[in-house]
Amino acid sequence: MTLHGKHLVGGTHACSGSDTFHGVDATTQAILKPAFTEATSREIEAAALGAETAFRIFSHTNGEERAAFLEAIATEIEALGDDLLQRGHQETGLPLARLTGERGRTCAQLRLFAGVARDGNWVDARIDPALPDRKPLPRPDVRRMLRPIGPVAVFGSSNFPLAFSVAGGDTASALATGNTVVVKAHPAHPGTSELVAEAIVKAAAHCKLPPGIFSLIHGRRPETSIALVRHPAIQAVGFTGSQKAGRALFDAACARSRPIPVFAEMSSVNPVFVLPAALRASGAAIAEGLKNSFTLGVGQFCTKPGVVFGIASPEWEAFIDTFVTRAKTVPAGTMLHAGIATAFASSLQELDQVTWLERGAVAVARVTSARFQSDPTLSQERFGPFTLLVTAESFEEMVSLATGFEGQLTSTIHATGSDMTPAATLVRLLERNAGRVLLNGFPTGVEVCHAMNHGGPYPATTDSRFTSVGTAALLRFTRPVCYQDFPDSLRPDALKNANPLGLLRLVDGRPTRDAIRSA
Amino acid sequence: MTLHGKHLVGGTHACSGSDTFHGVDATTQAILKPAFTEATSREIEAAALGAETAFRIFSHTNGEERAAFLEAIATEIEALGDDLLQRGHQETGLPLARLTGERGRTCAQLRLFAGVARDGNWVDARIDPALPDRKPLPRPDVRRMLRPIGPVAVFGSSNFPLAFSVAGGDTASALATGNTVVVKAHPAHPGTSELVAEAIVKAAAHCKLPPGIFSLIHGRRPETSIALVRHPAIQAVGFTGSQKAGRALFDAACARSRPIPVFAEMSSVNPVFVLPAALRASGAAIAEGLKNSFTLGVGQFCTKPGVVFGIASPEWEAFIDTFVTRAKTVPAGTMLHAGIATAFASSLQELDQVTWLERGAVAVARVTSARFQSDPTLSQERFGPFTLLVTAESFEEMVSLATGFEGQLTSTIHATGSDMTPAATLVRLLERNAGRVLLNGFPTGVEVCHAMNHGGPYPATTDSRFTSVGTAALLRFTRPVCYQDFPDSLRPDALKNANPLGLLRLVDGRPTRDAIRSA
Repeated sequence: MTLHGKHLVGGTHACSGSDTFHGVDATTQAILKPAFTEATSREIEAAALGAETAFRIFSHTNGEERAAFLEAIATEIEALGDDLLQRGHQETGLPLARLTGERGRTCAQLRLFAGVARDGNWVDARIDPALPDRKPLPRPDVRRMLRPIGPVAVFGSSNFPLAFSVAGGDTASALATGNTVVVKAHPAHPGTSELVAEAIVKAAAHCKLPPGIFSLIHGRRPETSIALVRHPAIQAVGFTGSQKAGRALFDAACARSRPIPVFAEMSSVNPVFVLPAALRASGAAIAEGLKNSFTLGVGQFCTKPGVVFGIASPEWEAFIDTFVTRAKTVPAGTMLHAGIATAFASSLQELDQVTWLERGAVAVARVTSARFQSDPTLSQERFGPFTLLVTAESFEEMVSLATGFEGQLTSTIHATGSDMTPAATLVRLLERNAGRVLLNGFPTGVEVCHAMNHGGPYPATTDSRFTSVGTAALLRFTRPVCYQDFPDSLRPDALKNANPLGLLRLVDGRPTRDAIRSA
Repeated sequence: MTLHGKHLVGGTHACSGSDTFHGVDATTQAILKPAFTEATSREIEAAALGAETAFRIFSHTNGEERAAFLEAIATEIEALGDDLLQRGHQETGLPLARLTGERGRTCAQLRLFAGVARDGNWVDARIDPALPDRKPLPRPDVRRMLRPIGPVAVFGSSNFPLAFSVAGGDTASALATGNTVVVKAHPAHPGTSELVAEAIVKAAAHCKLPPGIFSLIHGRRPETSIALVRHPAIQAVGFTGSQKAGRALFDAACARSRPIPVFAEMSSVNPVFVLPAALRASGAAIAEGLKNSFTLGVGQFCTKPGVVFGIASPEWEAFIDTFVTRAKTVPAGTMLHAGIATAFASSLQELDQVTWLERGAVAVARVTSARFQSDPTLSQERFGPFTLLVTAESFEEMVSLATGFEGQLTSTIHATGSDMTPAATLVRLLERNAGRVLLNGFPTGVEVCHAMNHGGPYPATTDSRFTSVGTAALLRFTRPVCYQDFPDSLRPDALKNANPLGLLRLVDGRPTRDAIRSA
């Protein structure tokens, strides 16, 4: 499969710039062909305006049409076959088995979201029929549903080149609800991004959708991303990546004359609290699970457990021994790109007052709770295969440690038997600052389902009211619109009297699939 | 009833400052007693920290407890009797009949939200039960619900001293969902605010809730409001008022090291499009309705129709004649305070290239579409009894005018018979930029119901994904939390297997009230 190294703007190749860069083989550091070119203002403008033009059509497609499009994207991605996996492996160093699984997850997610688009209930239809005889004033007929927000800018992540990238959760969320999309590819996997973008363009053509519905631009300069976020046609932003980059996009979006919402998923240390009875009952199993979790994908997961708390005791020391022994067996992995490897190494060098237990292929250190509480940098994310073990002197001290965290994607408790009362105390604290609280599990591995919440207070995300994984992720790019006193002929199908879509609607505050008797 | 002129911080009077101001009689401009004092950092700190402490308890109350509290607030407000109406009338100039109606709306809203709290379905419970036998990996048990976000800062509006103020929609939304509240009273009605705050404090005591659940602070300096928004304990902001003030709060919230969501309802001109057949069929009735709408409450409604479009024709000229003739009969009203009256007068003086049709108690002007399109200031909100009539040369020109607007709370179409096809074209344009689209109605008068959307793209609000009126307003101050692999004993009631609250839950993607069979 030949890569063009061009932007895909409204279904056609474009390349007006001259500032080039290349993908790099993550394993060998060899330069990969072809060259890619930094997007210019011309391509940004064309992509954003094309998305706006296409939105005027696509926002009025029905759920079946959007479902068919998402399914066609999944089919086209699968049709890329091994070429996609090979290029993905070259650019990210991720093993083929992992990329095969991630492709499966990406396509399953597109099909799950297609199902939600087809089902149609995401529009949260609400109907308060007219009350013409109400005193002192009649009530008008008021009906409301969620509608797409407009063209969405999506920024792909480096660590999930498929599932959180060109056709990942942000793009799938935006398209499922009738928005159009401009993706800025992650510069660490431009070729993988191009392949997936071509699949989306093919699917759009196959479904006879306007080509501006999707564009892909390349770039590695922050100014390029900022320019896209600042473009007046862009109405919302989805991002997965570092806190620094996410905050820069958030700040740019808020500083617009017309600010737009930003859903940036950024930074989390995912603390784990191991309580005494759990340690005694299954310390070795917890050690094994944690070892697998913090080293999964070379520690390059946003849900990697980065700090583990236990209470001083012989069992805790035994747990640490077991954990470190097992961690030492983990082979060295290839990191996603040289920048991440360098950043990880220097993030470990900053840790000058910890006790190193292992510092080879993976890294494990320990500190006292006093030391942990006196140094806020110890509770910051270090992206890579590192975790920090913290010994609390008592449960009360563990509680005080649990309250000191910034917003998290996840917090985890290991508890059993007599731990359950203290665990309940911890849950009340941890749910304040985490999007997801786990019991006796490991935070890596985020299930794509209806009940998932992959979000959390800042800096986990810039908007704790939404998730970026699971079907509720669709809601990020929607807004309610209310139609007052419309005749049935002018109403969207979701709000028509006969309920032709068979939706579960809130009528006078009660959920029902019944038709509305016309006044 | 004696006013204290003090802040109410966590149920007790506080006043550490020395910078005083007074309420002013809106009709006579007489200074009203007592003096109020600008809140100091001490009061802001005490209110915010008290709200955080109380949140730890109040966020775990059940729906019945929160419903009882909201109902007690309504009862206590009603118990204030005429004292509240009299003080409200003095401070705002609003007629007693209007304030009586607004009190009714405020208490009905508290009771409606109590019903939603008691019903409990707002938590949007979603359950994906464990699939222990799934291949290649078992699925964990994943359950999610909405939880309160934390202490909310509420900024009362000047134009609804009851319904959008101390115990208005923002406070009711926050409390119904388990958040605590710090209100910064509008300085134009500090006495009215104090009376309502005392009612809330009494209700909290009656319900044995922690006193920090609610505080009221006074101030007229922007720095006081900014300091409250910047306080680390504050987790969200509700605001109704001017674009300048709302944007300042939004900017401060976004610039925090940990940004927080701001729902600011700000500015809207609420354009009205009158189509030809509607003009012919009911021009006089539309003129009468529009006259009532733009002069209601002396034009001091955020949904006041500020621009009216028609297509050049004898019927349009006849409509203008009728409209102006009726507008001239509207008696002069008292504006809310001297600042608004002055701002309104100067906002009219800026209009130097319009044709004045009336400039007395109310103001009406007309312009050509060419002039309107060349001067963006003509589509800005002017808060007071003014509307601008714009003559389009054709329907196509009306369409082009309709696309030029910034975000709106409402847009309105008058159409009948042969207008319905062009109306459908307009609806598609108008719904892009408006939270609510009305047919053959008038935008003032916002129904408090389940299907209402009082919101819209910027500058109507700072977050088009939410409404500030109607029961969906509760969602502004909530965030999802996911509980993974919890035993039933640790789960919130909304997510327990037996469904003890009888909620409609999304189980494996299907809405049901059924219990979950425990694994």
